[in-house]
Amino acid sequence: MVDAEARRTELAEAVWRIVVRDGLEQASVRNVAREAGLSMGSLRHYFATQSELLGFALRLVGDRIEARLRAVDLTGDQRRVVLAMIDEMLPLDRRRRGECEVWLAFTARAVVEPNLASLRAEIDARLVEAFQMMIRRLADSGALRPDLDQTVEAERLYALVDGVILHAVLRPSRMPGAAGRAVVAAHLARIAPSDPGVA
Amino acid sequence: MVDAEARRTELAEAVWRIVVRDGLEQASVRNVAREAGLSMGSLRHYFATQSELLGFALRLVGDRIEARLRAVDLTGDQRRVVLAMIDEMLPLDRRRRGECEVWLAFTARAVVEPNLASLRAEIDARLVEAFQMMIRRLADSGALRPDLDQTVEAERLYALVDGVILHAVLRPSRMPGAAGRAVVAAHLARIAPSDPGVA
Repeated sequence: MVDAEARRTELAEAVWRIVVRDGLEQASVRNVAREAGLSMGSLRHYFATQSELLGFALRLVGDRIEARLRAVDLTGDQRRVVLAMIDEMLPLDRRRRGECEVWLAFTARAVVEPNLASLRAEIDARLVEAFQMMIRRLADSGALRPDLDQTVEAERLYALVDGVILHAVLRPSRMPGAAGRAVVAAHLARIAPSDPGVA
Repeated sequence: MVDAEARRTELAEAVWRIVVRDGLEQASVRNVAREAGLSMGSLRHYFATQSELLGFALRLVGDRIEARLRAVDLTGDQRRVVLAMIDEMLPLDRRRRGECEVWLAFTARAVVEPNLASLRAEIDARLVEAFQMMIRRLADSGALRPDLDQTVEAERLYALVDGVILHAVLRPSRMPGAAGRAVVAAHLARIAPSDPGVA
């Protein structure tokens, strides 16, 4: 017998596969049950509504990224640490590309669906904190240019990373994940130059 | 009698209203006809498929933004000119917020829908050119820091602006359009400082 949490995770993964393949609007309770090889009744045992199911799938993306961020080695040059954290968010391989596509689909849907909007806002708040923490790490280690405002820099880095993700998901041929990473690395080199006397 | 182009524009505007209010997945041919006060048959006279209708609505957003970009006064300090161009893209009022919401919904949908993907890619290519042109204007007028790579800077500015738009549409309470504009202005002040000797 599968335990409930593992089954819920399996269902969330079925949601992701549908979102990446067919779009979020196809992730109905019926399609998710079929994708996971379950009856509608069994699925309803785990999730009462489609909104709950979608919310769980989105939360799982957030949790996984956060777990990977926590696993990043924090020692050494903080420029390297921050770029390693951002690497966990960028679509640099198949798994992370899937997460980014799910993230974009949910983000667009959250604009018009109140149930998803509050969850998306919660994840947004955690991301704001993550980027504030990255800028603070750069500042505390003396790497951040001292004339920069930390609040503005956290917003600027967060917006840049989301824009890079958006472009890499939208047009992978023009802007592959690695090219997006190079833009982020160039940005970090400007706000935290190796030799603060230069640039 | 209404001319065909005006009627098509009216229908595209009906699509926008539905997207902003209910989400893109509600913009079916049936709902758009009802929103515009037309029969399904009349609508089909203008657009044979839902894909054509959605494509026209997206193209119209792009055309309107481009027309406003062309109307920006190009004289004087090129930092002001570039910020004025970006202002036309940011959700700084109700009309531009609606455009941004439509843009986000179509962008997310384009990832899984080939018909919209090629149109979205075409608009993306025009935007890449627009941002390259902005960076060139800063460079040619001597405002851009000479140690910056123009290709990287065009990608960085484009990603930053799209990230700012995304955050402003997603959580207008946390990040209103004006706050996003301040982040973009701070970025421009770094890459094209008023006194190139400083910063």
